[in-house]
Amino acid sequence: MEETLGKLKRTHYCGVFREETAGEEVVINGWCQRMRNLGALIFADLRDRTGLVQVVFEGEGNKALFEKASAIRSEFVLAVRGTVRLRSNPNPELPTGKVEIVASELRILSAAETPPIYVEDDANTSEAMRLKYRYLDLRRPKMQKNLLMRHRIIQSIRHYMDEMGFLEIDTPMLSKSTPEGARDYLVPSRQRPGSFYALPQSPQLMKQLLMVSGFDRYFQIAKCFRDEDLRADRQPEFSQVDIEMSFVDEEDIMAINEGLMGRVFREVLGMEIPEHFPRITYREAMERYGSDKPDTRFGLELIDVTNTVKGTAFKVFADAIAGGGLVKGINAKGGAGFSRKEIDALANEVKTYGAKGLAWLSLSEGGMKSSFAKFMEESEIEALKRAMGAESGDLLVFVADPNGTVVNTALGLLRLHLGEKLGLIDHDRFDILWVTEFPMFEYDEEEGRYVAVHHPFTHPMEEDIPLLTTDPGAARAKAYDLVMNGTEVGGGSVRIHRKDLQLQMFELLGFTEEKAQESFGFLLNAFKYGVPPHGGIAYGLDRMVMLLAKVDNIREVIAFPKVQNASCPLTEAPTPVDAKQLEELGIRALEDKA
Amino acid sequence: MEETLGKLKRTHYCGVFREETAGEEVVINGWCQRMRNLGALIFADLRDRTGLVQVVFEGEGNKALFEKASAIRSEFVLAVRGTVRLRSNPNPELPTGKVEIVASELRILSAAETPPIYVEDDANTSEAMRLKYRYLDLRRPKMQKNLLMRHRIIQSIRHYMDEMGFLEIDTPMLSKSTPEGARDYLVPSRQRPGSFYALPQSPQLMKQLLMVSGFDRYFQIAKCFRDEDLRADRQPEFSQVDIEMSFVDEEDIMAINEGLMGRVFREVLGMEIPEHFPRITYREAMERYGSDKPDTRFGLELIDVTNTVKGTAFKVFADAIAGGGLVKGINAKGGAGFSRKEIDALANEVKTYGAKGLAWLSLSEGGMKSSFAKFMEESEIEALKRAMGAESGDLLVFVADPNGTVVNTALGLLRLHLGEKLGLIDHDRFDILWVTEFPMFEYDEEEGRYVAVHHPFTHPMEEDIPLLTTDPGAARAKAYDLVMNGTEVGGGSVRIHRKDLQLQMFELLGFTEEKAQESFGFLLNAFKYGVPPHGGIAYGLDRMVMLLAKVDNIREVIAFPKVQNASCPLTEAPTPVDAKQLEELGIRALEDKA
Repeated sequence: MEETLGKLKRTHYCGVFREETAGEEVVINGWCQRMRNLGALIFADLRDRTGLVQVVFEGEGNKALFEKASAIRSEFVLAVRGTVRLRSNPNPELPTGKVEIVASELRILSAAETPPIYVEDDANTSEAMRLKYRYLDLRRPKMQKNLLMRHRIIQSIRHYMDEMGFLEIDTPMLSKSTPEGARDYLVPSRQRPGSFYALPQSPQLMKQLLMVSGFDRYFQIAKCFRDEDLRADRQPEFSQVDIEMSFVDEEDIMAINEGLMGRVFREVLGMEIPEHFPRITYREAMERYGSDKPDTRFGLELIDVTNTVKGTAFKVFADAIAGGGLVKGINAKGGAGFSRKEIDALANEVKTYGAKGLAWLSLSEGGMKSSFAKFMEESEIEALKRAMGAESGDLLVFVADPNGTVVNTALGLLRLHLGEKLGLIDHDRFDILWVTEFPMFEYDEEEGRYVAVHHPFTHPMEEDIPLLTTDPGAARAKAYDLVMNGTEVGGGSVRIHRKDLQLQMFELLGFTEEKAQESFGFLLNAFKYGVPPHGGIAYGLDRMVMLLAKVDNIREVIAFPKVQNASCPLTEAPTPVDAKQLEELGIRALEDKA
Repeated sequence: MEETLGKLKRTHYCGVFREETAGEEVVINGWCQRMRNLGALIFADLRDRTGLVQVVFEGEGNKALFEKASAIRSEFVLAVRGTVRLRSNPNPELPTGKVEIVASELRILSAAETPPIYVEDDANTSEAMRLKYRYLDLRRPKMQKNLLMRHRIIQSIRHYMDEMGFLEIDTPMLSKSTPEGARDYLVPSRQRPGSFYALPQSPQLMKQLLMVSGFDRYFQIAKCFRDEDLRADRQPEFSQVDIEMSFVDEEDIMAINEGLMGRVFREVLGMEIPEHFPRITYREAMERYGSDKPDTRFGLELIDVTNTVKGTAFKVFADAIAGGGLVKGINAKGGAGFSRKEIDALANEVKTYGAKGLAWLSLSEGGMKSSFAKFMEESEIEALKRAMGAESGDLLVFVADPNGTVVNTALGLLRLHLGEKLGLIDHDRFDILWVTEFPMFEYDEEEGRYVAVHHPFTHPMEEDIPLLTTDPGAARAKAYDLVMNGTEVGGGSVRIHRKDLQLQMFELLGFTEEKAQESFGFLLNAFKYGVPPHGGIAYGLDRMVMLLAKVDNIREVIAFPKVQNASCPLTEAPTPVDAKQLEELGIRALEDKA
């Protein structure tokens, strides 16, 4: 029953037909979205990546054709020749809804069993089924749109980078395992049994070498790999837009990237964004938003009331202050209407963020309610209300802790929760900003050493170089993140280009000279032979697409994603392999039956 | 001594200065190519990716500046402010040779030790050293040019494919190990100990699924992997331009690809190539050129003289014919001047190609010489000369064998050798052609079964479908290779889109239904739900760049290539890893000390 395409090659895509096309003889190829047999007429909606059009088979015409058409089912692949005509009952929901194709010839190119999932945008299908039958799921217009947008974004990036004089250079996938960073995916070597390649976590070292090589401006859209347990916006393999340039400082790098974002938004979304993005230091971001990736689409900023409540008898506040900590609050405008149950839920929430509890005070027309007002003087409460800019209808929430970071972080997360709950987030808006002056290091209690916040190649701010010897924890980096709607989309830095400074960094990070040589020897060697000042940035492409496509799951913008345990529901990878394959690699799986 | 860039950011690249620029104050950044201190003057040539320009420091001017300049050595990284002026002694070899920059300010951004290899195009450096110090090797103008060309080629490909409505969609690197094809690189799974991902040998199955998904036109420049022993034009990881389209036949696919090549040649080399490429069937290519990737830049075609010498007493020819084989020759025009030693070398050569020997006959003014004329009648010799179109000055060479394939292959290789030796190959020319009608299968004596010549998803020619049951070895495929100057640059086919035919293929290839399900189950399942006719092609990008850049080694067009044993001389990958890493993956290396 299945036929070849033969001469029935399409003349038009399905989605293009309009009133003006009426009268033309056309050939279309596509999938049957649905078929209705009305006895005298058969309607079949034909779908391709551009849309749907109605095809009609008329019983009064060609009997053989009509009979053949009666075999059509959903998802059959068809080639149809016919004439476009105006519909007597136009469908205003469909771009092609004013016309239909009256079929004169039909070929059934491929039959289809009843598909296990509906090929429809609003079908309520579990993600497990969608991923198992991904080839059907990808037929849905939404998924087609997402991947089309992904294509447009990468095209737009490449055009711009090329115009700006950046060369795309691909760096090895079979690379070297290096310490620092996340867990590597390893690839056993057959020719050197016992040795392994690592799949790159980023092309960081290679792109720095390309700067040493004088390529001046490099970019790449590279696959990167991290063997970590997955979260909603992580995949074991992900795409990184990787950029590096020489003879520049932070200003040059930010300017290029502002241009890049402007181009992508213009070409992909048809939207103008500001030529320059606001900048906020890490410290200010933490203080005002309790986050190093603040969502600035709404207010609810954190207000420091430590001084306001200094000297209070309320033990929670007093203890925090005595311990050198902070008392901070958020004025949840209009939150006075929250029920006691809702407020308790907020309190539970901040506990999961590490705070000991939530102090609150609501001001409604019926009067003030509070979890702590009874422990404070009336004048103190008045001062607090003034500091918080409180009005009737507001809910004030406070966190106090001897550890200021706990206060900021907990309130920062609560702020996001409240922004959503109070409906303050404009989801049509894109707020893009730079977060700058990140700390160089954070102290890893577990390992008992400093670790790099960005990576070990990040240049300290010039004025903070002396701090590397006196107070490394206070040193700030020439590092910057690009934050969009509260998500870190990219991050970069000016790199160290002096060998002595790079060695000092490794020392600070607890590397012996031997270990530094073993792990990064080729970079340190390269640094002997003339290194330009350089810096760059890397974007998480998948996240960028996710934000621009306004979906909330990274799997919606990846054709064949992995799930939680890093497996692929479609191909079932990873799978056991033949014993012979392992033997050739000189390895043995310890749990063959796992 | 090393300084920051500060305000000395470049205003111009080094290679742009011409007479017209004289008088301008400029800032340039780059590497010192060489420095000459003449006592009263110091000259330093500054290099960046655009070229070189001469900088002069004048002793009579700023003393401090002059003293600082005297510290400059080769490969120091400098920032120089200065004024462009006309040179009193122009250097016609240098595009910037009419001018020089008189320095007024200098910053030494990075010092350099004496580099272990020369940063010069004609430096006679071993490849081992070049790859170990790749970051220096890449500073050479030739390597910069090669990678710039690579960038331009991929940009050109992407523009064209986008214009033609192809979406670039990336498919997983962590994929599933499948039989058929080369040896996989495996990646152990931490979350499923004992299971492995495979790095893709090509995105073949995924791109077919994308067609099943209705993406209609797909492309990708994808990294692919084969764990095979390397040859000069192979790398363990390589880049593939991967293309697939739906609702098409061979003609559509070839037309799109002719357009692609035309675009690349025009944009990258500024060269027009024919709109359509000549086509030759596999069979004709083997008969005329002894190769399925004929180099048509020169003649020396194979001439079948089996019938001409039928009945001869010369045993070598007679035996070949009696055994059902062939006698074929090449007229090496002008080869009569070869010495006996040279001819013996040719004879030895064909033996390494599998032939038993070489029969030859030379015609010079001094008369005829031959290895076999004495065994044949004069009339037979005359007939042979006529058949070969022999004239004075020619050398005729013959191979005879009961196995015709041996004859064609040996002469095909000898032909290439002779073309080179006789200087017949025009290295400025690009001959591009399609080789079509490849056989579906070849019989693998070792495995005792048919294997797919292209791959198991290749559609047989419609008229040869019945042969699948009667004589599979005779069935031809809807497959085509794109051959450029005797190198296979791309290959593709129309794919099977019918489940029954696909199952028949697997059966022919010796797969049990169970094994087919286990290995390709997701494809076979997808084939149940409506598959469009589809086909595509894949190019070896590295080879394509190699040909366009006119270099003879694939490593010249890859930034960080691997060598023979698949290791990287720069990073030393693959390397041993921490025992903890292997433990987490649930594997053990059997030869830890290898």
